[in-house]
Amino acid sequence: MPVPPMTRRQLLKSFGAIGGSSLLLGAMDAWGLKGAPAGPRPELRGTQPTTRVVVLGGGLSGLIVAHELNKLDYDCRVLEARDWSGGLMWTVRQGAEHTEIGGERQVCDFAPGHYINVGAWRIPHSDAGILGYCKELGVRLEIFVNSDDANYFYEDSADIGPLAGRRVRLREVKADLWGSTTELLAKAMNQGDIDVQLSDADKELLVQFLVRSGYLDSADQVYRPPASRGSDDVYDLSALLRSGFGARARSLNQETGGPAPLFQPVGGMQQIAFGFQRVLGDRLTLGAEVRSVRQTESEVRIVYRDTRSGEDHEMVADYCVSCLPMSVLKTLDVNLSPRMAQAVSETSHAAIAKMGLQMRRRFWEEDDGIYGGHLWSRGLQLGEFSYPSYDYFGEKGVLLGYYGSSAQAGLDQMSVRDRVEHVIRQSSKVHPQMREEFESAYAVWWEKVPYSVGAYGRRVDADLLARLSEPDGRIYMASAHVSADPSWMEGAVESAWRAVEGIHARVGRS
Amino acid sequence: MPVPPMTRRQLLKSFGAIGGSSLLLGAMDAWGLKGAPAGPRPELRGTQPTTRVVVLGGGLSGLIVAHELNKLDYDCRVLEARDWSGGLMWTVRQGAEHTEIGGERQVCDFAPGHYINVGAWRIPHSDAGILGYCKELGVRLEIFVNSDDANYFYEDSADIGPLAGRRVRLREVKADLWGSTTELLAKAMNQGDIDVQLSDADKELLVQFLVRSGYLDSADQVYRPPASRGSDDVYDLSALLRSGFGARARSLNQETGGPAPLFQPVGGMQQIAFGFQRVLGDRLTLGAEVRSVRQTESEVRIVYRDTRSGEDHEMVADYCVSCLPMSVLKTLDVNLSPRMAQAVSETSHAAIAKMGLQMRRRFWEEDDGIYGGHLWSRGLQLGEFSYPSYDYFGEKGVLLGYYGSSAQAGLDQMSVRDRVEHVIRQSSKVHPQMREEFESAYAVWWEKVPYSVGAYGRRVDADLLARLSEPDGRIYMASAHVSADPSWMEGAVESAWRAVEGIHARVGRS
Repeated sequence: MPVPPMTRRQLLKSFGAIGGSSLLLGAMDAWGLKGAPAGPRPELRGTQPTTRVVVLGGGLSGLIVAHELNKLDYDCRVLEARDWSGGLMWTVRQGAEHTEIGGERQVCDFAPGHYINVGAWRIPHSDAGILGYCKELGVRLEIFVNSDDANYFYEDSADIGPLAGRRVRLREVKADLWGSTTELLAKAMNQGDIDVQLSDADKELLVQFLVRSGYLDSADQVYRPPASRGSDDVYDLSALLRSGFGARARSLNQETGGPAPLFQPVGGMQQIAFGFQRVLGDRLTLGAEVRSVRQTESEVRIVYRDTRSGEDHEMVADYCVSCLPMSVLKTLDVNLSPRMAQAVSETSHAAIAKMGLQMRRRFWEEDDGIYGGHLWSRGLQLGEFSYPSYDYFGEKGVLLGYYGSSAQAGLDQMSVRDRVEHVIRQSSKVHPQMREEFESAYAVWWEKVPYSVGAYGRRVDADLLARLSEPDGRIYMASAHVSADPSWMEGAVESAWRAVEGIHARVGRS
Repeated sequence: MPVPPMTRRQLLKSFGAIGGSSLLLGAMDAWGLKGAPAGPRPELRGTQPTTRVVVLGGGLSGLIVAHELNKLDYDCRVLEARDWSGGLMWTVRQGAEHTEIGGERQVCDFAPGHYINVGAWRIPHSDAGILGYCKELGVRLEIFVNSDDANYFYEDSADIGPLAGRRVRLREVKADLWGSTTELLAKAMNQGDIDVQLSDADKELLVQFLVRSGYLDSADQVYRPPASRGSDDVYDLSALLRSGFGARARSLNQETGGPAPLFQPVGGMQQIAFGFQRVLGDRLTLGAEVRSVRQTESEVRIVYRDTRSGEDHEMVADYCVSCLPMSVLKTLDVNLSPRMAQAVSETSHAAIAKMGLQMRRRFWEEDDGIYGGHLWSRGLQLGEFSYPSYDYFGEKGVLLGYYGSSAQAGLDQMSVRDRVEHVIRQSSKVHPQMREEFESAYAVWWEKVPYSVGAYGRRVDADLLARLSEPDGRIYMASAHVSADPSWMEGAVESAWRAVEGIHARVGRS
């Protein structure tokens, strides 16, 4: 069989496999794809009305596989164990519930209209694949604020020097670091003790730039903090450097997720799943827990249990696409080849947790002037504590009080109540209003969530990715885990498209 | 009469009068008021059910005066000549119309859901007064994107050097300017030829900061552009300095309106007026053109014409608050004292115009990855060309093609068609898609708009502000013009509160 030429998408994917997501984003940008709202989706032709495909798992990749195959007139059905779809695109709002594996049951009682995205929560503007589906499904998007100059840094370890135990604003760090350093450079240039390859006229322009951009006084070229810094109480350069806060003060917004802006669906990430659900109709079966998968040379038999009636049913298909988390697939009764079973066993997932806390009052807006973005602290052991990018100036609000490793500070061994206490106690060091304004929490420790048993997959190397990407007989693997971008929804899109292309090419040849 | 102590708000106002809005913002910030969603509104007690007040003009200040007085149980009515309220908070959408003074009639035919704010359009997060009313009235707010790293600079004058005639991204300018300058500073520090008052350990930390924040290679400390810059084609430092683009590349977002984030009402700025209208009910009379105002020692008589029937009516009140534009008040038949008439005659307004252009396709998002923010160019003579901060990834979009001086490029002498042609021709130098994708335009040259006859007022000095702020017999002046912040809605709030406080104190004493 001749090796097909690499598509642009495959090439981009291979960049990703080599250099990580930042290289992928860079390459996409250079190729002019960045920001395109509809990605370079596979353009497939021909219909296959007699071909039956069963998709295991109604997370993002499963929903996409079914949607695309059904567009080509396949008979493609999705089995989802839960009574809701979306997988890691779970938006917890009033009435959401789950019982932790071996643990507690929670029922969410947030106020109507309030929610927390406990899994996927932000979409880079360059992720054309997922954004294209939002457009196609009519899912409205709004800005996700990933950084706000009013955000705080906080570290209480003495190691960081004089700023330990202080709330320090990002705007203060930016202004003071650039102010102090441009002041140094301007001084050096004026004294002529710097070897600059510039004409005298350009040197003068450079000094003008430094004066303006570093908020220097135009007369004496000494740093004078701008009004937007918030106060005149300038931090000492040495103290700032020792704090390490400068890592966030780059000239371009390079936060997680790439350059601003990022987006989120209005009303929560799960709106994307609801959009697919509307289109799939009765081709998506909820409450269908997969029990076993048996492939032969000619077909695949899937047994699933109706979680309401407890009865088992069988489906027969030509192909099966597993969009289950690898942690679930590892324990499933499925006759994979030894080679594929080995590949699956080599994967591992990230042990990640999130907690939403509803507050009576949006004190971070009212008292601190913070509208979105994060609290940056290692010492507080809260991971990424984050402020909502919706319902600004509203009556209540749901904070993301915790987004980090499940096991940090022994949290995975604690009751939900004790985990909440940890978050309130630690975040109170920066926001003393937390305890007074707290109303209700919902904690999602993904390893303890049935049918997920873990959060996103850990990045696999190029060899393992290649092995997982090949079909195993009549079974295909699709999930963000089997992509160069396992912790982003775009990875799920890429893997779904690969499975769809693979199946359609194979059916077309047969 | 003893001089009352200055309130905090009055003090802030006097800062504003002295130092301009940036000083005002700075002071508010330092005082901890910034970001508070409900501003320090006057807390007034006592009701005045027998006191009649007539407000002239249903712009923001008029709506606030009436709303606040009616809360105190006054009999306060608003007369508005148009058949809609809001004044400069005009949101043009399908069906909006006006006939220019001495000129053309336009009717807006934008697609449903699309609009352009042709007057007020952005709310700084520190403007607690107007934000408080949004909250009170249930007006939802969303982020107004005032700057996007993907935004372009464009100048075609040869003066600016090698970058003339090129589309240059803000992200490129930021990365290259900071990259090149931090490289210089790092080099100077390594050569030891810079006198830095830092310990050796701190010097090392400073070099690390420069390496990271300036995207220097950690080995050779040479600038290497980051992936998020978009391409590796670095601009020469000299070329960048000559372009002047660096003026936008400060470490803090200091665009017009102060630090990010800024907000806009979901659905357009006029939602605020609609909110007041719902509360005021029949106390707001639309289609009521004020013809004359006569005050005596005991009352004020206002004659207005019903613009539908053509009939004149008279209203008698204890007090009158003029919230009319000064340009309109100047020509009104009203018996002001010579001193106040003189003060009014000393005011002038800004000759500002805006144009919205509906595009078939959001090419700035699809082709350029731009989501909000502006195009910066002096040479194109478009003023502030701007991209919409709503309906991202939608089917169509309305660009702000022009926001600048009415008379620039002789536009105020042209037909609407020729003004549109100017905008399309000039903006096509940056966005060649403009002509192909153009569907429909709506032009608002505020000097040509009946009942406005100009945009916001030009800032008045402290003496004139003091004269306009005093009541003239039974007539009070309230509008953003009579404030320290005439080009922002917050100025209208301040002036309205002053009038309300003044009337209520006087009625309480009498």
